[in-house]
Amino acid sequence: MSTITHINPPELHTSPAFSQGTIIAEAGRTLYVGGQNGTDSQGRITGNTAAQAVRALRNVLSVLAATGAGVDDVAKLTIYLAADADLNAAFTATGETWGHHPTAITVLRVAGLARRDALVEIDAIATLP
Amino acid sequence: MSTITHINPPELHTSPAFSQGTIIAEAGRTLYVGGQNGTDSQGRITGNTAAQAVRALRNVLSVLAATGAGVDDVAKLTIYLAADADLNAAFTATGETWGHHPTAITVLRVAGLARRDALVEIDAIATLP
Amino acid sequence: MSTITHINPPELHTSPAFSQGTIIAEAGRTLYVGGQNGTDSQGRITGNTAAQAVRALRNVLSVLAATGAGVDDVAKLTIYLAADADLNAAFTATGETWGHHPTAITVLRVAGLARRDALVEIDAIATLP
Repeated sequence: MSTITHINPPELHTSPAFSQGTIIAEAGRTLYVGGQNGTDSQGRITGNTAAQAVRALRNVLSVLAATGAGVDDVAKLTIYLAADADLNAAFTATGETWGHHPTAITVLRVAGLARRDALVEIDAIATLP
Repeated sequence: MSTITHINPPELHTSPAFSQGTIIAEAGRTLYVGGQNGTDSQGRITGNTAAQAVRALRNVLSVLAATGAGVDDVAKLTIYLAADADLNAAFTATGETWGHHPTAITVLRVAGLARRDALVEIDAIATLP
Repeated sequence: MSTITHINPPELHTSPAFSQGTIIAEAGRTLYVGGQNGTDSQGRITGNTAAQAVRALRNVLSVLAATGAGVDDVAKLTIYLAADADLNAAFTATGETWGHHPTAITVLRVAGLARRDALVEIDAIATLP
């Protein structure tokens, strides 16, 4: 069971896809997941936006899993897409991996990522059970 | 009364417009506000940079208010502007809504936001009373 | 001694340069360092990417020092580079200032920073001893 409280004020436009805000409970530990690209275990990046997005998200989930956490514990996701990445492909492709777990999200198109072959980067903040 | 401590080391250039750092006190709850565009309650985005910036900031304030928090409780604001948005217009327009409440801020111009009609996105981290 | 726990799951590609995740311990205080440019104490920005990156990082360290914290206490760094900034120069130049202190990092190229003369901005989240 997650210790996150979801905040969706009635006067705001809401969506089942995200939460307008999330609260991490008192006195918990907080996990910061560094920006994950669609790298495999050897550090290679291959594939299009959809493939990289799924892989980047799985890498975030690996860091969560290493701490005993899961998608329910994520308080904030920030998703950075290269300027020419296919945003809709990224969302569609990651739907199955992420499931229905709305959280606070920021999605940006940036001028580029540190690795020039990366189309997607995802970082996260989570609370630990 | 906010539980945030503002940090402005004397050797740094400082400004009344922001704090160089902020500290959230021990054992508090932390609120993450997801990226807010200048959407109305129906999810529509209209108007220029100034109008969207004011609306996006009010949406952030709505999430804060839903948790019993206010501008004094914000530890970090990140403001994302589309590459062609008018930054000065955004600052001028939001001055009245935000008032004089310096906090830690990052302001960026990005290649684009998830919604192509959005010129401004603002997310926030706050401590809850 | 830092209270940060570093998380590097074996199934992920890892690097001595960063941690895949970091955990801030229970009940600590959290410091948010606002985006630092390569400004001197008068607010002036001079020099190329390397010079600005070192100065921006030193400004982050000044905020940490003002709270009794140091590089060991940083849980997350986000580094924003202007689209035409020299990323390799920034990394090389900041190596000596930062030392060997891997943490969770996101590095982005953005379309621009709030100040048009800025090539680098760095913000940080740290736990306080």
